[in-house]
Amino acid sequence: MEILMGIGKAGLKASGNPDILVVLLPQSCNTSFLFTSNHFKSASVIYSEGVHRERGTVRALVINSGNANCGVGPDGLIHAEMMARETARHLEIDHREVLVFSTGVIGKPLPIENVLKGIESACKILEPLDLKRASQVISTTDRFPKYDFVKKGGLEVFGFAKGAGMIHPNMATMLSFVFTNADLDSFTLRELHKDINERTFNSISVDACTSTNDSFGLISLGFLKEDLENVKQAVEEVSLNLAKKVVEDGEGATRIIKIVVKNASISLKAKAIAEKVATSNLVKTAIFGRDPNWGRIVASAGSTPFPIDQFKMRVYIGTHLVFDGKPHPKEVEGAKAYLEENKEIEVVIDLREGKESWTYYSSDMTYDYVRINAEYTT
Amino acid sequence: MEILMGIGKAGLKASGNPDILVVLLPQSCNTSFLFTSNHFKSASVIYSEGVHRERGTVRALVINSGNANCGVGPDGLIHAEMMARETARHLEIDHREVLVFSTGVIGKPLPIENVLKGIESACKILEPLDLKRASQVISTTDRFPKYDFVKKGGLEVFGFAKGAGMIHPNMATMLSFVFTNADLDSFTLRELHKDINERTFNSISVDACTSTNDSFGLISLGFLKEDLENVKQAVEEVSLNLAKKVVEDGEGATRIIKIVVKNASISLKAKAIAEKVATSNLVKTAIFGRDPNWGRIVASAGSTPFPIDQFKMRVYIGTHLVFDGKPHPKEVEGAKAYLEENKEIEVVIDLREGKESWTYYSSDMTYDYVRINAEYTT
Repeated sequence: MEILMGIGKAGLKASGNPDILVVLLPQSCNTSFLFTSNHFKSASVIYSEGVHRERGTVRALVINSGNANCGVGPDGLIHAEMMARETARHLEIDHREVLVFSTGVIGKPLPIENVLKGIESACKILEPLDLKRASQVISTTDRFPKYDFVKKGGLEVFGFAKGAGMIHPNMATMLSFVFTNADLDSFTLRELHKDINERTFNSISVDACTSTNDSFGLISLGFLKEDLENVKQAVEEVSLNLAKKVVEDGEGATRIIKIVVKNASISLKAKAIAEKVATSNLVKTAIFGRDPNWGRIVASAGSTPFPIDQFKMRVYIGTHLVFDGKPHPKEVEGAKAYLEENKEIEVVIDLREGKESWTYYSSDMTYDYVRINAEYTT
Repeated sequence: MEILMGIGKAGLKASGNPDILVVLLPQSCNTSFLFTSNHFKSASVIYSEGVHRERGTVRALVINSGNANCGVGPDGLIHAEMMARETARHLEIDHREVLVFSTGVIGKPLPIENVLKGIESACKILEPLDLKRASQVISTTDRFPKYDFVKKGGLEVFGFAKGAGMIHPNMATMLSFVFTNADLDSFTLRELHKDINERTFNSISVDACTSTNDSFGLISLGFLKEDLENVKQAVEEVSLNLAKKVVEDGEGATRIIKIVVKNASISLKAKAIAEKVATSNLVKTAIFGRDPNWGRIVASAGSTPFPIDQFKMRVYIGTHLVFDGKPHPKEVEGAKAYLEENKEIEVVIDLREGKESWTYYSSDMTYDYVRINAEYTT
């Protein structure tokens, strides 16, 4: 009942490090997969989305890093299917139960012969899934591997991910795979997954740009009967930890910014406002400058379609109440010290109108962000 | 039948330069005013929007720069009304026909006594409206004054504006006032204004942040009977020139980026895609790096709610066709030279599905953008 993995090389990374990962599940598993909402999708996403919609159950994953298999014309689709078939052939499974993922440069055709050779060697030597190693193989510009594990009684939830939240060389991607030994039917899995995704991977931002390749899978290994609420909590915990690691790894970042919008009338509004503040370049540069510039916070909070009451709302930077319908100039100095001394910065916007809240994670915008993104040349 | 102006000082600018402008129209004029959609509005915007909704006709404008009169609690509203009443008293006009505008720092109460003194001295010496001088007085961090004039036969359209498209010290603002001698009723003026605003000031971006104070007025001086289409063309020309000057002045900018989405099915789609590409940090940093990174262009074009056909669309950088359903690696070198040699960069996204098009202006994202926005401390 073990998950196995195999590692191969297709020469897609400049470093020459392994760039092919094959994951073999112990049997056909109920799964839920969420793919990027970008309409300019990687061929690997188009292929896997189609296969998964038809079948739903999955037996194996094949992932290449270093090349996004995106923007390369119709060949991309043929290559994705070849990757699935090659994996299935060597593992002796149905190729319709193999999903394909790619991450890396946009617009360069996959050297498919090398990729198929890499898959062949990956399938030859299978070993138990090592979360850290798996994350390393699928990483591109990541500075550290991303994985997490939670065990509560008999319940196990674990996962690995990649993503540095920004784009290098062309378009980095968030890939995340979370597994649980809980037995969940496809419908329950899907509902749980969508809900958790909204509060985790859909509530982080480094540069507000949606990748062509983002994918997030939730896989039920299916033998433990467990209370759904427990499963939900554990899956959310692992997913949030993975998502926060992506923000931490945002290249150029010196601060993690946690935006909490609370006491909103509806959660949709709380999320919209949290997202707007978290993705504001002005807020992100202010935090980099250790500037408790609440003017930029309230101005971005005001620029969603949802009305806010500027005479009622409160804004805290850390525990410092900098605005409550009017400015509190005396709090600014303390807020500035807080920004200088802490690596994770909490900004709370209390709308004081209802009971809903939302938390969004972001990172600051630095010279290094511009350097990394401007200096790379195709 | 002349427009008059008066200039005063309230000590709101660190430079000590004039910061109060009063504009007196020759009579009550039909006007249309569009204000920021931000819900965290300046008290001056809340006041003027209310007065204008009731009355519609305008006799005078009073504008202060250096202080946004925003985020200061209920006092802001009282101060805005005091500014209108003071202006009306000295000019001997109805205070309900005076609109108030402010731009500058958020969260600092106006030193209202000084502002009223500044208004008094501005009203004492009135001179003919000088567009360049008017722009200078209302400017904050602008590097150059913004004004434009068009004369076609008897038709005259002219205007002045301020705005550096970014936020410094807390929140810079776009203020723009366009005048025409054409006689237009309020309803026609409003329709014309909304339409032109969409294609001009609503189609520019420096940092995708909506100010608390943005205001754009169109004023009919009302004595020339002129063909509406001619008026529209001239007003659009002046408005677009003013809008482009704001982008040019985007602090830190080294390139103006013109994004043209053409042959879309509907104009709403063309605009959404143009806006998404124009506001993408990844596209903006790539242009700063002189990198013809079409992967970032197509990825941002794909991330609106509107589907695009990646196998049909074409992307040009200048005249270089870098993508038409598949990459054109040979065009990349020419595109790179184009980015290095030109100050205004044109990116064309041809969707090849319909007849609608939209143009959006933006600027590149540079180290100076981060420096200016991070180094300022409240």
